[in-house]
Amino acid sequence: MKAPALAASELARLLSAEFPEAMSAESGLAIEEVWWGGCRLRQAFRSQSLRPGATISGATIMALGDYAVYVALLATIGWEPLAVTTSLNVNFLRKPGRVDLLADCDLIKVGRHLAVGEVTIRQEVGEVGEGGAVAHLTATYSIPPRR
Amino acid sequence: MKAPALAASELARLLSAEFPEAMSAESGLAIEEVWWGGCRLRQAFRSQSLRPGATISGATIMALGDYAVYVALLATIGWEPLAVTTSLNVNFLRKPGRVDLLADCDLIKVGRHLAVGEVTIRQEVGEVGEGGAVAHLTATYSIPPRR
Amino acid sequence: MKAPALAASELARLLSAEFPEAMSAESGLAIEEVWWGGCRLRQAFRSQSLRPGATISGATIMALGDYAVYVALLATIGWEPLAVTTSLNVNFLRKPGRVDLLADCDLIKVGRHLAVGEVTIRQEVGEVGEGGAVAHLTATYSIPPRR
Amino acid sequence: MKAPALAASELARLLSAEFPEAMSAESGLAIEEVWWGGCRLRQAFRSQSLRPGATISGATIMALGDYAVYVALLATIGWEPLAVTTSLNVNFLRKPGRVDLLADCDLIKVGRHLAVGEVTIRQEVGEVGEGGAVAHLTATYSIPPRR
Repeated sequence: MKAPALAASELARLLSAEFPEAMSAESGLAIEEVWWGGCRLRQAFRSQSLRPGATISGATIMALGDYAVYVALLATIGWEPLAVTTSLNVNFLRKPGRVDLLADCDLIKVGRHLAVGEVTIRQEVGEVGEGGAVAHLTATYSIPPRR
Repeated sequence: MKAPALAASELARLLSAEFPEAMSAESGLAIEEVWWGGCRLRQAFRSQSLRPGATISGATIMALGDYAVYVALLATIGWEPLAVTTSLNVNFLRKPGRVDLLADCDLIKVGRHLAVGEVTIRQEVGEVGEGGAVAHLTATYSIPPRR
Repeated sequence: MKAPALAASELARLLSAEFPEAMSAESGLAIEEVWWGGCRLRQAFRSQSLRPGATISGATIMALGDYAVYVALLATIGWEPLAVTTSLNVNFLRKPGRVDLLADCDLIKVGRHLAVGEVTIRQEVGEVGEGGAVAHLTATYSIPPRR
Repeated sequence: MKAPALAASELARLLSAEFPEAMSAESGLAIEEVWWGGCRLRQAFRSQSLRPGATISGATIMALGDYAVYVALLATIGWEPLAVTTSLNVNFLRKPGRVDLLADCDLIKVGRHLAVGEVTIRQEVGEVGEGGAVAHLTATYSIPPRR
C-alpha cells in the first residue's frame, strides 16, 4: 500500500496553522489516521452540538464529513489547502446519541481537476446496532491547477 | 398570500430556547423574514468562519442552508422542532468574501411525512456580480407524525 | 438579453446527428426553446415510460433533466458535445400522470471547467395543482478544455 | 445471513409483469443476484446507450442504479412495487467503454417509511483499471404504508 503524501501529525500541524478554529482543542475535531486515498477523523462529543431530540446536529455531521474528504485529499495529493468543495450530498440514516463520531473516508476518484470522496460516519459505541452508520456522505473537491 | 404559522419573532424566541447555540448573538445567525412556504436568514460574517483562500467555509454555508429549510418548515407547519434532515445536497458556485450571507429558502414540497426546501445563498453585497449566488442547496426534512 | 450561442433548430440538428436515439421521433424528446443560460425541453408522454402506480418512471425524469442541462450548456457555450455530467441530484416531488413533461433549466454557474444547471420539471397540464413541480434537479457538467 | 424476502427468479418474474419494458430482453437489464439488504444487476451493452465520446450515457447509468436500489429493497422487504424514489444522487467517476455494466447495491438504511441504498457501478471488464468504479450513487425510496 502506498504511503500517504503527508503523515497525520504533519497534516494536523499544517491544518492547525491554516484553520485555527477547525483543528483546535475546542472544536473537538482530530485526525485519527491517514492513508493514501483516505482517512479516519474523530469528532469528540460537545454539548453545544446537540439539537432538539437530544441528538447531534446535521451541521456538525456535515462539517465532519466535508473535512474528512479534505484531509483524505491532502493526505493523497499533498499540501493543497486551496482545494475546495464543489458539491456535497449527505444522507442522514440514524440519530446519533451523546457520543463521539468517527468518519471514515475513501477517495473514489482522484483526477487532475476533481476528486470525489465517500464518507461513512458512525458512533464510536455501537448504540445504533451492528454496522449502524449515522450518515453517509459524498463530496467533490476541485483541485487547484499546479503551478 | 397565506400567513406563516409562526411569526419571525416567535420562531426566534422558540429556537433560542431550544437551540441556545444556534440562535445566539455569538453565532451570528438571524431570521430576517418568514412567510408561508419560505424564509430569509442572515449569517453575519465572523472571522472564525474563514478557511484557506480567505473565503467562508463550506461548513458555515451548509449549516446556514440547512437551518433555512428548518425555519421555513416551522414557519409553514408550525412548531415541530423534532423535524430532522434526511438528506441534503449542496453545490458551491462562487467563493464568498468577508461579508454577510443571505439565505433565501422556498419549500418546493410539503407533504405529510416529507418536505423539500430549496435555498439560494448570496453575499449581501454584490461582489460576485449581478445575481451571483455563492451556493445552491436542497434539503429534505422528515416531519414527525402528529399525535 | 444575450442571444444563445446556438439556436434551438441548429442544436436539434446537431444533436440528432450525434445522439440518434435521444432526439428521435421515437424518444419523444424535443427542444421547445433555448436562451443564453437555459432552455425548455419537452418529453412527450410514452406508455413505455410508465412504472407501477401508473406514473412516469424516475429514469425518464432523470434523463430529461440531465439532457436539459446539456442542451442549456451547449446553447450557452456553443457546440461542445464532449461535455459530460460529473454529478446529479434529483428530488422527486409529486407523481406525474399520463401527460407530457416540461423541463425548464437555468444555468446557475458557467465556469471555465464546470457548469451547474438547475431544472424544474412540471406536467404540461396542471393536474398536480398550481405551480406543482414533479421533480427538481441539479447537475454539474465538466467542460472539456478548449483546444 | 438472512435470506432475501424474494428470490432473484421470483423478482424477475414479478417485475417483468409489472414493468414489461424495464426487464425485457430488449432492455438488457438483468438481476444477477439478490440477498437480504442488496443485489447485483447487469446492464448488457447496447449501442443505443452510447453518447458522444463513445461512452455510455449518464441516463443509462442512473436508470441502472435507481433500479438496483428498487430491486434490493423488494428483495429485503418483499413485494411492494409502489415504493418510489424520493431523491437520488450520482457521481460519475470514469467513462465506461462499450461493455456490460454491473451494479452492486447495499441498503444502508431500511426504516419504516424510508430506505436508502448505495450503489457502485463498474464495468464488467477492468478497462478502467483496478477497482475502478464508473459511478457511485445513493437513492432514497419511500415505502408505502402497509395495509
